[in-house]
Formats: sequence, structure tokens, C-alpha cells
Amino acid sequence: MGCVQSFRELCDRPKNTNVRISLPAVCIVWETAMIILFGIFIRYDDDSDSHWIDDRKETNKSDIENEFYFRYPSFQDVHVMIFVGFGFLMTFLKRYSFGAVGFNFLIAAFGLQWALLMQGWFGSLGPDGKIKIGVESLINADFCVASCLIAYGAVLGKVSAVQLMVMTLFGITLFAVEEHIIIHIIHAKDAGGSMVIHTFGAYYGLFISWMLYRPNLNQSSRLQCSVYHSDVFAMIGTLFLWMFWPSFNSAIADHGDGQHRAAINTYLALASTVLTTVAMSSLFQKHGKLDMVHIQNSTLAGGVAVGTAAEFMLMPYGSLIVGFCCGIISTLGYIYLTPFMEKYLKIQDTCGIHNLHAMPGVIGGIVGAITAAAATESVYGVEGLKETFDFVGDMSPTKQGGYQAAALCVAICFGVGGGILVGCVLRLPIWGDPADDSCFDDEHYWELPQDEESTQPVLQYNNHMRNKDVIETNFNMQQT
Amino acid sequence: MGCVQSFRELCDRPKNTNVRISLPAVCIVWETAMIILFGIFIRYDDDSDSHWIDDRKETNKSDIENEFYFRYPSFQDVHVMIFVGFGFLMTFLKRYSFGAVGFNFLIAAFGLQWALLMQGWFGSLGPDGKIKIGVESLINADFCVASCLIAYGAVLGKVSAVQLMVMTLFGITLFAVEEHIIIHIIHAKDAGGSMVIHTFGAYYGLFISWMLYRPNLNQSSRLQCSVYHSDVFAMIGTLFLWMFWPSFNSAIADHGDGQHRAAINTYLALASTVLTTVAMSSLFQKHGKLDMVHIQNSTLAGGVAVGTAAEFMLMPYGSLIVGFCCGIISTLGYIYLTPFMEKYLKIQDTCGIHNLHAMPGVIGGIVGAITAAAATESVYGVEGLKETFDFVGDMSPTKQGGYQAAALCVAICFGVGGGILVGCVLRLPIWGDPADDSCFDDEHYWELPQDEESTQPVLQYNNHMRNKDVIETNFNMQQT
Amino acid sequence: MGCVQSFRELCDRPKNTNVRISLPAVCIVWETAMIILFGIFIRYDDDSDSHWIDDRKETNKSDIENEFYFRYPSFQDVHVMIFVGFGFLMTFLKRYSFGAVGFNFLIAAFGLQWALLMQGWFGSLGPDGKIKIGVESLINADFCVASCLIAYGAVLGKVSAVQLMVMTLFGITLFAVEEHIIIHIIHAKDAGGSMVIHTFGAYYGLFISWMLYRPNLNQSSRLQCSVYHSDVFAMIGTLFLWMFWPSFNSAIADHGDGQHRAAINTYLALASTVLTTVAMSSLFQKHGKLDMVHIQNSTLAGGVAVGTAAEFMLMPYGSLIVGFCCGIISTLGYIYLTPFMEKYLKIQDTCGIHNLHAMPGVIGGIVGAITAAAATESVYGVEGLKETFDFVGDMSPTKQGGYQAAALCVAICFGVGGGILVGCVLRLPIWGDPADDSCFDDEHYWELPQDEESTQPVLQYNNHMRNKDVIETNFNMQQT
Repeated sequence: MGCVQSFRELCDRPKNTNVRISLPAVCIVWETAMIILFGIFIRYDDDSDSHWIDDRKETNKSDIENEFYFRYPSFQDVHVMIFVGFGFLMTFLKRYSFGAVGFNFLIAAFGLQWALLMQGWFGSLGPDGKIKIGVESLINADFCVASCLIAYGAVLGKVSAVQLMVMTLFGITLFAVEEHIIIHIIHAKDAGGSMVIHTFGAYYGLFISWMLYRPNLNQSSRLQCSVYHSDVFAMIGTLFLWMFWPSFNSAIADHGDGQHRAAINTYLALASTVLTTVAMSSLFQKHGKLDMVHIQNSTLAGGVAVGTAAEFMLMPYGSLIVGFCCGIISTLGYIYLTPFMEKYLKIQDTCGIHNLHAMPGVIGGIVGAITAAAATESVYGVEGLKETFDFVGDMSPTKQGGYQAAALCVAICFGVGGGILVGCVLRLPIWGDPADDSCFDDEHYWELPQDEESTQPVLQYNNHMRNKDVIETNFNMQQT
Repeated sequence: MGCVQSFRELCDRPKNTNVRISLPAVCIVWETAMIILFGIFIRYDDDSDSHWIDDRKETNKSDIENEFYFRYPSFQDVHVMIFVGFGFLMTFLKRYSFGAVGFNFLIAAFGLQWALLMQGWFGSLGPDGKIKIGVESLINADFCVASCLIAYGAVLGKVSAVQLMVMTLFGITLFAVEEHIIIHIIHAKDAGGSMVIHTFGAYYGLFISWMLYRPNLNQSSRLQCSVYHSDVFAMIGTLFLWMFWPSFNSAIADHGDGQHRAAINTYLALASTVLTTVAMSSLFQKHGKLDMVHIQNSTLAGGVAVGTAAEFMLMPYGSLIVGFCCGIISTLGYIYLTPFMEKYLKIQDTCGIHNLHAMPGVIGGIVGAITAAAATESVYGVEGLKETFDFVGDMSPTKQGGYQAAALCVAICFGVGGGILVGCVLRLPIWGDPADDSCFDDEHYWELPQDEESTQPVLQYNNHMRNKDVIETNFNMQQT
Repeated sequence: MGCVQSFRELCDRPKNTNVRISLPAVCIVWETAMIILFGIFIRYDDDSDSHWIDDRKETNKSDIENEFYFRYPSFQDVHVMIFVGFGFLMTFLKRYSFGAVGFNFLIAAFGLQWALLMQGWFGSLGPDGKIKIGVESLINADFCVASCLIAYGAVLGKVSAVQLMVMTLFGITLFAVEEHIIIHIIHAKDAGGSMVIHTFGAYYGLFISWMLYRPNLNQSSRLQCSVYHSDVFAMIGTLFLWMFWPSFNSAIADHGDGQHRAAINTYLALASTVLTTVAMSSLFQKHGKLDMVHIQNSTLAGGVAVGTAAEFMLMPYGSLIVGFCCGIISTLGYIYLTPFMEKYLKIQDTCGIHNLHAMPGVIGGIVGAITAAAATESVYGVEGLKETFDFVGDMSPTKQGGYQAAALCVAICFGVGGGILVGCVLRLPIWGDPADDSCFDDEHYWELPQDEESTQPVLQYNNHMRNKDVIETNFNMQQT
């Protein structure tokens, strides 16, 4: 017994999961830095500053035309997706629900502050050197964080909170640069972030997971599965993501018809995806039973894939087609691709983000490029075409299509390159990540309630008693 | 052992729950049909088309006056009710949470596409043969789906996914016709759908359940109950329905005071219902203990009953009175009527939709008729009366009251007739429904996680060991 | 066996938890009173009355300028916080989830009706003796209820439903008077209710708990803890509170920039709190493990503390600083202060509301006073300053600061005084509260499902069998 103990201690030595110094240090230092940087750079924008009343009177506007009323309901829906949607979607593991929802909470709150700064520096730095923030900035910060939460899905259960924070810090930084290139330099449109958020985030996570490959992860396989109630919890995440995705794709679209159309397209694409996901899930299982993994994840693929083109005149049937294809591709991905990638490409993808975000994101980029290239004045109207694509100078739909395709490449490159780089950093043995046989286990990072008592001690107790019986029996028999 | 096995196989033969061919086939064929029909018929409406900018400039409107901003927040609330509200409300069964939330998800996504088409053909087909959709269409599609989800409550756990889809297909079709008659021909008002949605949906479901009567359902009674955590999950559904019901009843009410008043009336009616539900639940149980079934369901009855009259000048105290009565009636229904209906009328109503939707829906129709008939210009104002009831020609409040009552009859007839018809179709032995002893069990339609391991094998293991003990003991004793 | 039984019956006699008469009586009598009082006093306000159309035409307004569209999305978010947020936050106890979410539901629905009346009598009684209600009244009623739900947190698991209703009845009454003094007499500003709601509610609850001190509460300590899944349920509450807190603090702020700024400030303060809470939680536990109690509660402290100053020009970095401090203070409160208060001050605070509401509330009041006192025309603009603080006559920022401080004192006094008074009433032995060894147990007030069967009988069964084995063995041996 003592021998086994000391052997395990030896094995665990390089994997010390104690983050009692590093985690508080990172949090406090980081938050202090944020306060200083916010003090120097961040101010309210025109619509949230108390001078707005002068503005309003000058331009004879109504209070209701404050940007707040255009975007706040969508912002709250996006906020729910980030914290409840992503958080609960990952609670499906038997013993990693605290880590799923808790670390998701931590890195989202951590990331959004850094996102406000990074996106401000690259996007909206005023001539006075100040970043002006309003409700649209908050949405953008949430979007930025989303890419890191997607990446978290690939490494769920295999990293420590400190690693997640490092991953988020770099992720947000890379995101802001990538977004700046795609939106402000290439002038591609990406309202729902198929490329900017999903493609980037997914490849970023997948290549980090590749760098952190664990050959002996099967030692934790007893915990890499769900229980009945954890699957129901995960459905909370799925449904809030599914329901609010129309808000996600329309949150920063153009006022008026832009937001309206983005919501309709997303609503339809998602409805279509559910049908094909169920079809594939049933078709590829014995007895036609449905698999919760597909229902929880693949049903969302349509929302990802319609992101870029959501505010274009994709037409309702176009949205249905996109959703139709993505439901099939994503479900087949879970059935064939995820095991293949783990076995041959050494990419261990806990939540299957390759099927939910990477492939649908790339499809979304392509759909966006085609839809943009095919845009005509007869469909959009002269004014409508300009308004939708923000054309300036001699831009044409064909050119825009090309730029959209270029943007997709940028997103993939940033994801892959960033993932490899940050993966290198995360391989350092200083971050408190768990050993191969301790993955997917809240035990190492959370004070757990003692509910094991109700089931496991039964087993131990009985074993003990049984042995005692045998001993007693033998003893009695020896007496006789 | 082999004998029992073959006997069970024999019994189960007509009840083959394998839907591996039928479910994917229905999904794929259906979705393909949707794409084609959407391609032919469905287009964006004026407020979601990119030509809206021309419109806006002509009429000198602000972007904020796009229909999107009037209705999108309410739409999202309704959306949450449909997917999380109805879905989680039905998770209360011990082993049918996947089926509750998963099939709810499937048929809602399936139904809303068909609803857009059906409601378009009957309601908003333009002179060019196109259906123009916008955010109000999405809300109406969600409403339409709600009636089928209500019907699902009656047959929960006793039907297969394929049956549910057939039921939804016919349900949506009937709904669209019924709604067209009530709203466009009879010109009745029904903002919150007490008649159109709840009365129709409930009788539709109840009469399907009557047609599918299972005399031996008690063979599944071990599963027709809740466990502690499944009741907490169901409370998620209850609360989201309860909280967002004001949005449900106000979502398609008139702009301005109409939506405002509908929200207030519903808020008050629901608050009042909670109090009387608790009172009745406590009064009719031994020791005054509360029953979760009542808290989960009857607390919502007030929202149903105030649906039709929500946008009328029902007055705040009127809303309270409606809620007061419905809490009592609905709870008493659960205590006395549901067992009575099962025993004598052969209607097995899993979720008690008769108490939550049918009775309150009928009450709502009657309240609506009375309130309309009692409307006066002194209360509504000259303009307000016209605006609220959309009076044209020689309509008067008294006539309107009569029309409201007629509408209620139409809703009931469609529900009963439709239920019987569709019930006949669903009795065909080709749909993969479960046997009488396999109802309320996710086992047959879902790949279940192996969490039984943690408790049941303990039992088996111990039994096994105990026998071994005895054997060993005996063996030892024989030795001595 | 019979002896133990009768002894326990004797002990339980003064603690009869049967509320079969009292609970229904209170509910029915109360609801009837509400209907009568609503009939006499409550009418629709201008924006929700059907005469609004005349208004609108006269003033040449758009429908979108109806108050409904300014506040309804925020109202729904607040509504979710009240019912799902507070309700699920308290489900963390192992066997009190029904009581947490169910009684929360009951007293919120009960309280909001009384709040509409009380706040109307004190705030908006018209010259015709009528109270005009609209969407802002609904938000205020929800706010009022929030203070009582906070107080519920202190006594969670230790009181009966009847006691809770009495507590709510008095709490709402005191709240309305306190709010009237603070808002209408002192003219303090408190958009997010740091003082009015949180400070008052927390001290009200704490002093009731002090009056109801149970020296033998440790007899229930086996139930005063969580299980794995109950902690995940509680996270649903935490996250909905956290996400929607920006809506809470901005719901009744000034139109336009006021609401906009309040949302931004709250968003930032909350993000900052998460980081310092995690830091403290990890730093003060062995092995740096995180404690769910802190993550569930202390992460919200920043939202409480930024309540009063949310609509002021607190500046983004100011919000971060407030959140930073509150995360630290609140977490340390859970670690050191709660045990201290229980041991030495005889205040048993089940949910730790002292750390989540009382301390952050007081901090919020102080921050509000300082921010108000430091307000200048250069920061706010001449018009902006007047608009933000509603200055009339010779008011100045310095004076306003003093009034804010006075308001804080009023809130504390009402909380402490009210708590002691109401605590006296609740000590009467007629309310059906549980005995010291029956606290934190749904058993006494709810019909519980029989899910114990799945685990506990295993134990009993095995014990039984084991004994039988031994007996059989002995018997067998005696034979030999």
C-alpha cells in the first residue's frame, strides 16, 4: 500500500495541481493592470456619456434612438450565450461540471476586460488617445471572449485554470489583431463571426490541444463520459445557445433591416439543422437510437455556418440549405472524424469543436464569399447594396467575394499559428495541469461536497462487512 | 429464463421501437420539401428586405421604427418558452428527461418551418404569390408550434418521435386553418391564444391520447413518477414559462398601449394564480404539504386564461380575479379530474394538460367574450375602442362578444375533431411506439450513459457476493 | 422503538409543521384582499391605457416612444433575476431545493401585488385617489420583492411558508416607507438599490435570523451542505443574476445615457469581482482549490456595490475598482465573518447574505455618496449634471453627497429595526416552523418523490441480508 502511494506521488510530482500561488497571483496582478489601463484609456462613448443630452437636443433626436435601445436586448442574449450557453454546454461530463461552468465563468470575465482594451486600441482609439465604449463594445468584447471559450472546448478537463487564463490572454490578443485585419484592412463583412470567431477560435483550440497531446489519456476514460443528469444540464446550454443564436448573428448587424434579416436567416438555418442532425444521429446508431452528443452539439452548426452571410440577402431557402448541410456534416464529424483525429492526428478534442465550430465556420466563410460575390443591385436595391456591404470607392460584389475568401484564410492562419505558439507556452511544466489519470475530474481544483458518501461507502462498507462475515464464519467454523 | 425472454420478445414484436429507417427518412424528406417550398414561396417582408432603406427615407422614419425593435425582445422570450419552457416543464419524469427536452426540440424545429408556410398561405400570401416573412411571422410560427407542444404533454412518454412528427404535421395544418377561421373570417381577437393555441392544442392532444388509450399502462407505473432532481429541472421550465408569459400574451398585440396592457394583465393574473394554487395544494394534501405537480403546472393557468382578454381593458383587478379562479380550478383538476378522466373517460393525460391548458383556455375564451361584449367608449375612448378591436363597418362590442364565443366553439371543434382523426392515423402499428411496459423510458429511443453502474451494480455485485459467501460458507462447513 | 417514537413526538409537539389550515387561509384571505384593493385603487397609466392613442396623436409621438419599449426588455431581465436568479441561487442545499425555488416563487408572487399597492400609495397616488401602473411600476414591484428574497437567504431552511409570508408582508411595507423617505423626501438617487434594496433587505433578514436564533441548529448540520448536482443548480441562479445585473441597475435609470451608462458600469464591476473572488477563494483554501460557495455568491458582490453609483459618471475604471474591492471583502466575509457571526453574534446566516448584500450594499451607498459629492459640471456637462441628479432649486453635488449618506443610514435603521420587530412576531409558536433537527429539509413541507429507494434500501437490504447470512451461517454451523 505504502509502495503504491509513493509510486503515485513520484508520478504526480511533475504534475502538481496546486495553484494556490499562481492562480491568485495571476488574477490580482491582471486585475490591477486592467484598472490602470482602463484609467488611462477607457471612457464612455457619446451615447453613454452624460453629455448625450446636449447631443440629443442639437440633433432633435428622441431618447429611444440612443444606441442602447437598438442593441441592448441582443447584448443580453449574447451575454446569456457566453455564460450560460457555453458554460452549461460543457457540463456534460460526469465529474467536470464545476470546471465547465466555473472556469468558463472565470475566463469569460477575465477575457472581456482585455478584449475591451485590445479591440479599442485596434478599432476605436480616438484622436485624444481614448477608447470610447458603449453597448456595441460590450457585445464585441463578448464575441471576442466567445472565440476563447470555443477553444476551451477542445482542452476541457485537461488543463488548469492558470493555463486557461494564459490561453485566454493570448487568444484575445490574437483575436483583436485578426479581427482588425479582416474587418478594417480587408474590409470583409462578418456579422455573426463565422470566420472571425468560430473558425479562428476552433483552430486555435485544436492546435493547442495538438501541442498538449496526452498519449495516456485513456487512463481517465472512466470520467470522460456523461451521466443522465449531466446530459440534461448540458441541454440547458444547448438550448440557450440555439435560441439566442439569432441575437448573436444580428447583434452588431446594421440597424433596421440588417438586424432583422440576420435574425430571420439564423432562425431558419438552426431549425433546418435540427432535422438533419436527428436524421444522421438515428441513421448511424444501432436500433436508430439518438445520441445526446449530437443533439447537444450538431444542432447548433447551422447557426455557426450562417454567421457571415446572415445579414446578406441569403434568402430564407438559402438559410435552410446551409442548415441542412451543416447538420449532416457536423454529425458525421462526431461519428467518424473525432475518433480519427484523436487516433491519427493526435488531436484530442473533448467537446468536438472541430465538428461544431471549425467545419461549420469554414463553410460559413465560403457561403459568405459566394453570397457576397453573387450580390446584385436587382436583389439588394442600389441603396441597399451599398448599405449592406458598406461599399466605398470602386468596390464591387465580385471583389467583395474575393476579400471574404481572403478573410477566411487569415482566420485559419491565425488559429493554426496562434494555437501552435500558445501550445508551446502551455507545455511548460509550471501551470498546474492534471496528470493523465486525473483529467476530467473536478477533484483537483474544487472543494467537492461529500455526496460520494451516499453511494461509494456502501460499496466499501459492504466489502468490509463481507470480509468480516467470511472471517467470522471461518472463525466460527474453526471453533466448531 | 430463456422462456421469459422469448415470451417478452413475442409481446414486443408488434411494438418495434426501432426507428432507424423511418425517423431519418421523415426528417430528410421533410426538410427537402421545406427547402423547395421555401424557395418557391417565402421572401423577406418590407422591414427585413434590403430595400427597406428606400422605404425608410421616403416615409421619413427612423431605423428604430423597424418592426424588429417593436417585437424582437418579445419574440426571444416566446422562443425561450417554446424550447426551454415547454421542454423542461416535461422533464419531471424520472427517466424521460431526454425524450421530454429532446423530442420537444425536434418537433418545435420541425413544426415552425411548416407553420411559416401554412400561416403564410392562409394569412399573408401576396398578389405575387409570395409569402413575406418578418419577426411577427416568427412569433406566429412559435405560437403555432406551442399548440403541438401542448398536445405532446398529453401523450408524453407513450409515443415515438415519428408519431410526434406526424402529430405535429397535422397539428400545424389544422392550427393554420382554425386560426384563419377565427382571426380572419370570424374576426375574433385572441392576442395570447387562449382559444386558438391553448384550447385547440389541449383538446387535440387529449383526443389523440383517448384514441391511443393503453389499458395496461400501469405496467409502466414504476417510471411514471419523478425523482428529486427531475422535479428541480421541471421547475426551470415552469419558471421560464411563468416569467415570460407576459411576453407571450403581448408579443403580437397592438403596438404601444396594446402590448403594454397585455403584459401588465398577464403579470397580475399569474401572480394571483400562484397564491391560490399553493392554497389548494396545501389544503388537499395530508399534513398540508405542497405537491410539486401543482406548483409546476397550475401556477401557469392564469397566463392561459388571460390570453384572449390580455389586450382588452380587463382592468388590473379583473386580471387578479381570473388568476384567482384558475389557480383553484386547475389544482382541483389535478387532484380530482385527471384520475377521473383516466379511469372513466379513458383519457391518459401524462402532464395534465386538461388542467393547465384546456380548462383555463376555455375560461380565457369566455372571459374574452364577456370583456369584449362589455366594452364601452367611456372606458376605451372612441379611438381606443376602434383601435383595440379593429372595428370596421357596423361592428359593435356586443357583436364582437358573440363572435368571440363562436371562435371558442371553433377551437374546441377543431381540437376534438382533429384529435380523433389524427389519433386514428397514429394507431397504425408502423410508427415504432413503445409497448405498455416500456413507456416513460428513454432507453428505447436514446443512447443512455452508463450511470446505472454507480448504483445498480452495487446491488448485483452484493447479491452475487452474498451468494458466494453462502456457498463458500456451506462449502467450508461441508469440509468441517 | 415505540419509546423513541413518543419521545420524538413530545419534542416535536411545539414544532408542528402542519400548515394545512394556516397556509391556505393566508393565501386566500390575502389574495381576496388584493382583489378588493386593486379594484378600488389600481388603474392603467397613460402609456398602457387605451386612451394612449389620443395622447400619441396630440403630441405627435411614435408608438415606439411608449414607455414599454424603453423598459420592457430590462423588466424581463429583472423578472428572471427575481424568480430564477434568487430561486436557483438558494437550491445549493442538498435537500432544500424545492423549498428554495418553490417558496421563493410563492413569496415573490405574493409580495409583488402588495408592493404595487404600497409603492403606489406612497409614490404615485393621483389626485383622483387612483394608482396608475405601467411597466416601471412592475419593475419597482420586482425590486421591492428582491429585498424580501434577500432576507429569505438568511433564514433559508429554518422557517415555514407562513412565516415567510408574514416576513414578506412586513418587509414590503417597511420597504415602501423606507424607499419613500430615501427617494421622495431625502431625494437621494439609488437606481440599482444598493441602499434601498440590498442594505435594507440584508439587515432585515439578518436581524430576523438573530431573533430566531437556534442554539441547536447543529442537529441539522447533516443537511446544511450541498451535493454535486445541487451546486450546479445553484450556478444557474448565480449566472442569471450575474448576467442580468446590468439590467437590474439600469432598469429604472434615466432614459438614454442613464440606462446605457448604468449597464456599462455594472458589467465592468461584475467582471472585476469574478477575478478577485477566484483569487481569494484559491488563496485561502488548502491546495488552492476553489470553493463553490464563493463562486456562487461573492462574484455578485460587485453588482450590489455599484448599484447606487451605476448611473453616475463613475468612469469605467471606477467600476473596476469597486468590483475589485467587493470580490475580496465578500469572499473574506464568507471565510471569516460568517462563522464569527454565528458563533459570537448569534446570527445564523444560511446563504451568507451579510457578505453578498449587506457589506457590498453599504459600500455601494458610500461609493454613491462620494461619487455624487465629487460630481462637477466639467465632467457631467451643465445639462447632464441637472439631468443625472434631478437637481431642483439650490441643490449642489456636495449637498447631494450628504443626502446620499443620510439615505444609507435610513436604510440600515429600517433594516435593523424592522428585522427586530418582525423577528419578535415570528417567534410566536403558531407559524409551523421546523424543529432544530428538521431544518434544511423539504420533507416537512413538500410531498417528496420516492427516489431514496434507489440508494438507501440498498444499504438496508444489504444489512438485512448480511445479518441473515450470519444467522444462516450460525444456524448451519449449529447444525454441524
